[in-house]
Amino acid sequence: MGKAMTPDVVVVGSVAFDSVQTPKAMHEKLLGGSASYTSIAAALFARTGVVGVVGEDFPKEYFEIFEKAGVDTQGLQREKGKTFHWSGVYEDNMNNRRTNCTDLNVFAHFNPVIPEAYRTSPFLCLENIAPALQARVLDQMEKPKFTVLDTMDLWINTTREELMKVIARVDLLTVNEHEARHLTGKGSLLKAARKILDMGPKYALIKKGEHGAFLMSKDDFLIVPAWPLVEVVDPTGAGDTFAGGLLGTLASFGEVTRENLHTALVNATVTAAYTCEAFSVDRLRQITRAELDARAAAFRRMMP
Amino acid sequence: MGKAMTPDVVVVGSVAFDSVQTPKAMHEKLLGGSASYTSIAAALFARTGVVGVVGEDFPKEYFEIFEKAGVDTQGLQREKGKTFHWSGVYEDNMNNRRTNCTDLNVFAHFNPVIPEAYRTSPFLCLENIAPALQARVLDQMEKPKFTVLDTMDLWINTTREELMKVIARVDLLTVNEHEARHLTGKGSLLKAARKILDMGPKYALIKKGEHGAFLMSKDDFLIVPAWPLVEVVDPTGAGDTFAGGLLGTLASFGEVTRENLHTALVNATVTAAYTCEAFSVDRLRQITRAELDARAAAFRRMMP
Repeated sequence: MGKAMTPDVVVVGSVAFDSVQTPKAMHEKLLGGSASYTSIAAALFARTGVVGVVGEDFPKEYFEIFEKAGVDTQGLQREKGKTFHWSGVYEDNMNNRRTNCTDLNVFAHFNPVIPEAYRTSPFLCLENIAPALQARVLDQMEKPKFTVLDTMDLWINTTREELMKVIARVDLLTVNEHEARHLTGKGSLLKAARKILDMGPKYALIKKGEHGAFLMSKDDFLIVPAWPLVEVVDPTGAGDTFAGGLLGTLASFGEVTRENLHTALVNATVTAAYTCEAFSVDRLRQITRAELDARAAAFRRMMP
Repeated sequence: MGKAMTPDVVVVGSVAFDSVQTPKAMHEKLLGGSASYTSIAAALFARTGVVGVVGEDFPKEYFEIFEKAGVDTQGLQREKGKTFHWSGVYEDNMNNRRTNCTDLNVFAHFNPVIPEAYRTSPFLCLENIAPALQARVLDQMEKPKFTVLDTMDLWINTTREELMKVIARVDLLTVNEHEARHLTGKGSLLKAARKILDMGPKYALIKKGEHGAFLMSKDDFLIVPAWPLVEVVDPTGAGDTFAGGLLGTLASFGEVTRENLHTALVNATVTAAYTCEAFSVDRLRQITRAELDARAAAFRRMMP
């Protein structure tokens, strides 16, 4: 993608080194970070640009992973210092994730600068970063048609007021079950989703991992089960991939209709399943659109 | 239904008094038992007869619940003694069920006798009773077209050999997640379902409660999410209701095709949700077919 071309989707978030241990394997300094998964997933469906920050140690090969996946990297700032490094362990048959270290490094001073050509992009994904930075991104954009926001416990606990302000500015808030309950204080996920709608977004997307997801609006409710995975190799990034598959699909259509949302949920589910089939983006970056479409069609046939 | 009429569906299992405590309420000696839920659910879709045993204390009003729901009760034996009584408590925000008492009473000596008119019935549901009794029912039937079998931990632990024999004789085994893992020794539900197919049945139905269900055959896979319930009043009998909704729907079509299975899974899900909306069969027995069909149609629209 040329420097002057406006992408259909802009993804802003973390780009990181992930060191991941599962009951079966251990890998060091894989390509990770929410924006990596989301942008590579979105690029399967639409022209995508990524905005993030990496350190001097970020290898050329990882830039190439983005570029080969069709993700424009002009928004990927390279700063003095080391790349954000996350390290975690999946325990108890993959049901529990424990974080060993979170070395923010250059990510600690991330100041997202949206490239000129990105500012008119119609679809925006604000991955899990500080709400103040998410707001700063929104300030730089020229009224995107559809904005997705992700967040996490840290911001719910530490910067709630700023978080609520940015939530009110977006179209869709995506959270997992735990975050939905934490954010809203509601035990029932349906009540939590309703409360999220009261905060401003038109849509609340609740991700339930291996149990699928649902999307609620004021007057509608869409459900999607999970793709049946025989074995999960590494679930890191599955939720971010889901957001990327969803937004990329919507961007490919250009309009957010009920039918397009259904298709987007199917593609998001199938794309997230690919992420779980390997470490890092190793499976995700190799799938072809034809493979994905075939799996999406098979998935639809599984449902009534 | 006249005595000489053959039902489309025969349900064999327990009929009981249930005393249930939830965080919000406590009710004594409600109509319960697997066969009660299954038969009343099946009767929404097809002519259904129930086979079970009750004691002298079983009230006329409970017989009337079956009859008003359209369930034929000529197979409901009345024996000297007391009716089976189960008592349990839902704790931890409904996520944990603890059994207080299981007084088998007349159910301890249950010897299922299938009424003459029932023996040619094409659809049979063998609810959770001792595998030897399930086999004895099969011996009395004249080759039903489709038989569903349910079981529980007790039989997996104590009469595994007899259980395996009866599993090999049925078309569909229905178990919950925990039972699937316990029966097969597989942690992955997909692997557990495959192992169930190796035991003989054409279909393995794994019920995941609030996370829906899936149905596996040698060469097919069907998924259904759960109906989005804002509040669960009492989940007792939801799994049995699911089986009844499924089998009743299949019986109403007369044939077990892929399309009919999809419809059956939708009806089973919606029917089970009604059971969760009240204690005992209080909601289930009051719904009309029109209400149910409307909810089933709404449910289908929620899915891609």
